[in-house]
Amino acid sequence: MHYKLALIGFGNVARALARLLIVKQALLKSAYDITFSFTGIATGGHGLAANPAGIDIQQALELVESGSDLSALSSMPLTDPLSVIRNSNASVMFENSPVNPQNGQPALDHIRAALSLGMHAITANKGPVVYGYRELIELAESKGRNFRFESAVLGGAPVFSVFRESFPLAELASFKGILNATTNIILSRMEGGESYEEALKYCQSIGVAERDPTNDVDGWDAAIKVAALATVLMDTPLTPQKVNPTGIRGITPEMIAKAKAEGKRYKLVCSAEKVGGQVTASVAPQLVDASSPLYGMMNSSTGVTFRTDVILDYSITLSERPGLQGGPVETAYGLFADFVNAVKA
Amino acid sequence: MHYKLALIGFGNVARALARLLIVKQALLKSAYDITFSFTGIATGGHGLAANPAGIDIQQALELVESGSDLSALSSMPLTDPLSVIRNSNASVMFENSPVNPQNGQPALDHIRAALSLGMHAITANKGPVVYGYRELIELAESKGRNFRFESAVLGGAPVFSVFRESFPLAELASFKGILNATTNIILSRMEGGESYEEALKYCQSIGVAERDPTNDVDGWDAAIKVAALATVLMDTPLTPQKVNPTGIRGITPEMIAKAKAEGKRYKLVCSAEKVGGQVTASVAPQLVDASSPLYGMMNSSTGVTFRTDVILDYSITLSERPGLQGGPVETAYGLFADFVNAVKA
Repeated sequence: MHYKLALIGFGNVARALARLLIVKQALLKSAYDITFSFTGIATGGHGLAANPAGIDIQQALELVESGSDLSALSSMPLTDPLSVIRNSNASVMFENSPVNPQNGQPALDHIRAALSLGMHAITANKGPVVYGYRELIELAESKGRNFRFESAVLGGAPVFSVFRESFPLAELASFKGILNATTNIILSRMEGGESYEEALKYCQSIGVAERDPTNDVDGWDAAIKVAALATVLMDTPLTPQKVNPTGIRGITPEMIAKAKAEGKRYKLVCSAEKVGGQVTASVAPQLVDASSPLYGMMNSSTGVTFRTDVILDYSITLSERPGLQGGPVETAYGLFADFVNAVKA
Repeated sequence: MHYKLALIGFGNVARALARLLIVKQALLKSAYDITFSFTGIATGGHGLAANPAGIDIQQALELVESGSDLSALSSMPLTDPLSVIRNSNASVMFENSPVNPQNGQPALDHIRAALSLGMHAITANKGPVVYGYRELIELAESKGRNFRFESAVLGGAPVFSVFRESFPLAELASFKGILNATTNIILSRMEGGESYEEALKYCQSIGVAERDPTNDVDGWDAAIKVAALATVLMDTPLTPQKVNPTGIRGITPEMIAKAKAEGKRYKLVCSAEKVGGQVTASVAPQLVDASSPLYGMMNSSTGVTFRTDVILDYSITLSERPGLQGGPVETAYGLFADFVNAVKA
């Protein structure tokens, strides 16, 4: 089967996906008889392109990475990302454009459009999961297509697909974990003696924290991930506003030193519990001791412990690694796995 | 779809599976339109039964658990487990009879027979995976059926299905973990001050260690699990003999005290690495420090860290829990998940 692909958003993650698809091209063909071409690309500041006969992806990568515009690769005039989706004639749309965490736009509209046109829709964005999960799943089902979002949490490492495929008819009672790398790096470095400001500056220097770190340090990134996990895995809609996170700005070096002397650590703990059909969720700094699976998760390590009715306390953890947590290659792999599984399903 | 089930082996795990199937009966029907009946049961010391019209499973459970024979539930005379398989007219065979870890028998013959007759074959036994994986997978494929064994490692927690479904076209480069609960409990309790003999006696008292503990303490149980993981996930046949394990009998209280003073711990570390198509594997006590994901895994906690070409260091961990690791309910869930996924596939 041949699949035409539209890339809506062409930043680090989408470009890493394009490269990963090229690397795995022969394996896709031999293992699943999957071939592909790129027929639509929408960038933020480097133009739009659509060509149902195929866009030269190497040229597109080179143009954008050298700061040029890729509009010349288009076989038609285009006005916006939606026009790329409509004119790409794609069978799979990857949505990785910048998203408003308050309402999931414009990702939500892109995914609605793609599914309505009979494309599979795949995203690394959390927003459309939190603000549109049920609607999008139902729309996808009505079209015989799939909406997938493995990379929305734990940066591309399998979580959603594990529950979808490996835990049939299990009931998720609760989960607890560390979902935001930036705050975990800051707390780890403060334990090593740095001030909050020094640790934050380090995170900004390696590109894990943005210039305005609010989204991370005030717990909103963690809260939207908790909301996404609860919405999907507990089948209960939850918004980050309902999670109402507490961030790490209130944690002082003195508090960290005192905890350390007692063999404890502060972690930005993310949790949710389902009781009687109701989900209660929380994101807040908590003291954990060595008996907690979270205690050993330092720096960019993230992970979640799931408690089900059938398997107690099953944890998925990504170890800390040099540089970025959930870097573009790992996030790209989540999108790649979604692609393979969406078209196989 | 209605499935007739044969239970070959009717010990704790198979009986827990029967109870779990009853508990999830309504969900199986509503979610997947799956119904089932039991048409064959082979016990070790409580007789054999086959009846294509259905065996009353509650009666079978009561008979065996009160120490009685269930042969009266059979609609025909039977000679051995193979005759139960042949006469059950089952569509799914669960193999959970005692197995010879040297050659995987008689499980291997039971699974061959079931697959040849067009049944799905599902087992919690490691032996048939290590000694028959390729043959059984090919036989299953030729019959359009599935051979599944989720519960062979990590006692029912998803591992094999995670790689099968959630890591498409990923290459597993290496793994490292703790796979045997008994030795991990012994080492944990020795760190707490018990002698090897006291800790072993404790394990025997709670039913995790057998009277002859050789299989656990000399590393053979861990080695056969390493062999099963490598055989399946690295697609490279490996036997426990090739792993050539070193057990924990050589670890003295003095060694443990010295390690503790240095902030380290002995763990029976299981590992394998694939380089240039060759797999090298090891099971041996190793010193680990707090930076290792294995350091925090105490008592009955087990788990594995996987390194792939696409996602670095993805760990699956089962937390320690009161009582038994991989107890019958968890192992039963692995068989249950295999059943659902085998018939859905």
